[in-house]
Amino acid sequence: MGFRKIEAIIRSEKLEEVRVALDKEGFVGMTVTEVRGRGSQGGILLEWRAGEYRVEFLPKLKIELVVDDFDLQRALKAIEESARTGTTGDGKVFVYTVDNIIRIRTGERGGKAL
Amino acid sequence: MGFRKIEAIIRSEKLEEVRVALDKEGFVGMTVTEVRGRGSQGGILLEWRAGEYRVEFLPKLKIELVVDDFDLQRALKAIEESARTGTTGDGKVFVYTVDNIIRIRTGERGGKAL
Amino acid sequence: MGFRKIEAIIRSEKLEEVRVALDKEGFVGMTVTEVRGRGSQGGILLEWRAGEYRVEFLPKLKIELVVDDFDLQRALKAIEESARTGTTGDGKVFVYTVDNIIRIRTGERGGKAL
Repeated sequence: MGFRKIEAIIRSEKLEEVRVALDKEGFVGMTVTEVRGRGSQGGILLEWRAGEYRVEFLPKLKIELVVDDFDLQRALKAIEESARTGTTGDGKVFVYTVDNIIRIRTGERGGKAL
Repeated sequence: MGFRKIEAIIRSEKLEEVRVALDKEGFVGMTVTEVRGRGSQGGILLEWRAGEYRVEFLPKLKIELVVDDFDLQRALKAIEESARTGTTGDGKVFVYTVDNIIRIRTGERGGKAL
Repeated sequence: MGFRKIEAIIRSEKLEEVRVALDKEGFVGMTVTEVRGRGSQGGILLEWRAGEYRVEFLPKLKIELVVDDFDLQRALKAIEESARTGTTGDGKVFVYTVDNIIRIRTGERGGKAL
C-alpha cells in the first residue's frame, strides 16, 4: 500500500504519444515541465559550414505522475514503449517513493487522493 | 529527526496567497516552477462558437519546500487552506522523504541548513 | 547498492561552472530547470530613487542528477565548491533516495541505466 512517483525525461516531440499511452492505461493525471537535459554522452556537436558548435543541453520534457505501487510496472511499460525511438537521447525514467498524497480540493489523503 | 519535501501543484493565481500563508507559519524558503498539469479528469473542453476545443494541459505552478518532519502537518495545512477554492483544478500535494540538506554558502548539513 | 537524486538550486550564472565541475568528476548527465527561488531570508528589497520595491522570488536554476550512493559525496563536493560565492543566495542542495532508474532507449534498469 504505497505510492511511487515516476519522473520521465523524454524527447519533447514524444509528449503526445506518451500522454495517450498513459491515458489508455488509465493514468490520466500528470505534470509536464520544460527542462534542458544532458545525457550520459554529454552535449552534442553540431556541424556548420563555418565549423563545429557544441551544445551542452538539449530541450526535453519532464513528465511526472504518481501511481499506486500496484500499477507501477504497467505505467513504466506505457512510458517506455511510447517514448522509445531506439536512438541516443530517448531519455530516462526515475522512480521515487511518495510518502503521502493530498487532493487540495477535498483534503483527501493517500489512495483517495490519487 | 527527518526532513520532508512538500511538492504542491497549485492554481497559478494562488501563488501569492500560498506564499503569504506559508510565510505566516514561518516557512519562508521555497521554489516555484511553471508546469503544465492534467488532473484526474483529463483535459478540459472549451466551447467556442465554432465548436469545441480540447485542452489537454493547463498552466499550473509547482511549489516546493523542505521542512522538518515536526513541521510537516502545519505546512500542509497552510498550503491546503490557502490553495483551495473547492472546485476542480485545485491541484495536489505530494510528500517525499529528504535524505539530506546542504546550504551551499556555508556547507552546513541537515537541520542547520534548513 | 542504491541511488540518490541530487537536486541543487543554484545561481543561474553558476550553471557553466557547476556543469564543468561535475563533468570533471565524471558526472555527465543532468537536467536543468528554470525556477524562481525564495531563500530563508525571504524576498529582497530593491532600492530605487522612487522608493523601495520588494521582490519575493529570484530566478534560479535547479540542477538534478542521479548518482550511485558510492559517488554521492564526490558529486556534492563538486557542486558545493563550484556553486559557492560565499554570499546570501548561493542556494541549497537536497538529496533523495531513488528506487529505480530506466534507460528508455534500451529498457536497462538500475546501475546499467545510470
